[in-house]
Amino acid sequence: MNEALDPFVKSSLTFSMPNLVSADSTSKAAIPTPPMTNSVTNQPRNVTGSFGVPGPTADLLVRTSYIGAFDRRLRNVHWVAEKLTKDSIDRLALSDASLSDTEESKPDRKHSTFKEDPAIPLAFRVKPNDYTNSGFDRGHLVPAADVVESQAAIDETFFMSNMSPQAPAFNRGVWASFERYVRGLVKSFDEVYVITGPMYLPKQDPEDGKFYVKYEVIGRDKTVAVPTHFFKVILGVKNGSHYMGSFVLANEGVAQDTQLDSFLLPVEAIERSTGLEFFPFLERRSVKALCSAVKCSFKLASKYRANSASEE
Amino acid sequence: MNEALDPFVKSSLTFSMPNLVSADSTSKAAIPTPPMTNSVTNQPRNVTGSFGVPGPTADLLVRTSYIGAFDRRLRNVHWVAEKLTKDSIDRLALSDASLSDTEESKPDRKHSTFKEDPAIPLAFRVKPNDYTNSGFDRGHLVPAADVVESQAAIDETFFMSNMSPQAPAFNRGVWASFERYVRGLVKSFDEVYVITGPMYLPKQDPEDGKFYVKYEVIGRDKTVAVPTHFFKVILGVKNGSHYMGSFVLANEGVAQDTQLDSFLLPVEAIERSTGLEFFPFLERRSVKALCSAVKCSFKLASKYRANSASEE
Repeated sequence: MNEALDPFVKSSLTFSMPNLVSADSTSKAAIPTPPMTNSVTNQPRNVTGSFGVPGPTADLLVRTSYIGAFDRRLRNVHWVAEKLTKDSIDRLALSDASLSDTEESKPDRKHSTFKEDPAIPLAFRVKPNDYTNSGFDRGHLVPAADVVESQAAIDETFFMSNMSPQAPAFNRGVWASFERYVRGLVKSFDEVYVITGPMYLPKQDPEDGKFYVKYEVIGRDKTVAVPTHFFKVILGVKNGSHYMGSFVLANEGVAQDTQLDSFLLPVEAIERSTGLEFFPFLERRSVKALCSAVKCSFKLASKYRANSASEE
Repeated sequence: MNEALDPFVKSSLTFSMPNLVSADSTSKAAIPTPPMTNSVTNQPRNVTGSFGVPGPTADLLVRTSYIGAFDRRLRNVHWVAEKLTKDSIDRLALSDASLSDTEESKPDRKHSTFKEDPAIPLAFRVKPNDYTNSGFDRGHLVPAADVVESQAAIDETFFMSNMSPQAPAFNRGVWASFERYVRGLVKSFDEVYVITGPMYLPKQDPEDGKFYVKYEVIGRDKTVAVPTHFFKVILGVKNGSHYMGSFVLANEGVAQDTQLDSFLLPVEAIERSTGLEFFPFLERRSVKALCSAVKCSFKLASKYRANSASEE
């Protein structure tokens, strides 16, 4: 097939756009210019004049304790990434002790409020009341409880760009339980990298046998998508070895006897569905299974506070 | 609200990622590095280690006669862009005359075949047979008939990355008729810029009153989305004046008396739904309505060749 293509076509077809952030440090991101190949024959015409191209733009979220990329079309993130360590989690206990006499000044999520994210252009920005009366919680993707640096850092997890509409039975039940499990992994690993995001998965229609993706949209303009599922891809590092586990949970409550390992899915399946590539600079063949290093076969708490006003 | 944020947070929240291609020429694209602000307090932690970030990557398609950005998640483009002029369309007639004695060597879509696009990574690449038996046409988004440069340039419109699953009654009927209309605009303007792409629009469920986006997915792995709608944003330039018209058509056949102007929608509505920004370097206040310069109130052909094997 390639024989039919002329040299320009061949050369122009060998590159992809780089990742949004291609450097390995969030503070020193460099975005290389893609190699735009020209040749005398069949040089691409300038087809957009001086008017620019439409995007897509993924708004990069750079916070004190996490980074992420925002999906303007679905008004959820593409993903958020955080790093947990024993030290980062322990700092909470530390500050508990040192600040016990000045209770009010202690960093705490109770001092935070949901707020719109000024980093997102107005046309694509989600407002706290876009979720009002939808029946869905404003569900944190980076959990507030993972963040201890400062009140400002906790506040950053309350930007609406860090929220997805989550069913209360999910957000306050199995998801909260799963988040606690992930925090606990710092006891087993030196470093725990967590990438979390929404998914929109198809289901087979029993009547016509075809597969459909169906998700609700909420908000004033019906632009905020309600994900059908959420993923967490977790990378634990211990003594230079890497352990990866990837989980997909439906946006709904679960039966009481649901075990954590029932949510395990190959990371490639999550990549195929999301279009993302997780930990792309990591040689995947050298990675061991997370559940070979930590216990994954236990029951998650499914109970939730049905009447609680708080959203996590 | 902003008063509560510390200086780092304020400064880090004021930038968005640039467009994929920010320069005004496809052959000289420059991608600026976003200003990554640091401060002594609350400096962002490196939360992805040396393992990279997950994307999203929009594969940039640079062809002889069009450019585009590919959506790895939905296996359709985000958009494709082309430029039409009287000269570019007339060249076809010209080559017809000059090559009439060597019929077989004339550039023609009949010499082209659908083929997978080697510019897209295998995990996200669409194969011609992903559409087989789906009931949907492999519908060109840049029409083959818009391209006359060379056989290689026409072949480039047959990459599966330029296809969307289109209902035959749509692709061979109203959509083909609309594409002919767009080509005809070169008679009214010096330059015609056309951006085309898929949409996934919500519908209200009459039973529960809520809004849902629902689309079929086809292919071996059920990863190729069937758009519910398609847009074309058209910019005509004449004597230095700009005329814009934006149209949204449902992926289905239409009634016989359907008029073109029934598909008109404000470009802002398309932007809100797609997350894109059209002709971002153009001062929109100075733009006139396309339909103030050309006739938009006429019936589109709705008939189609139901038994035709060819797909456009």
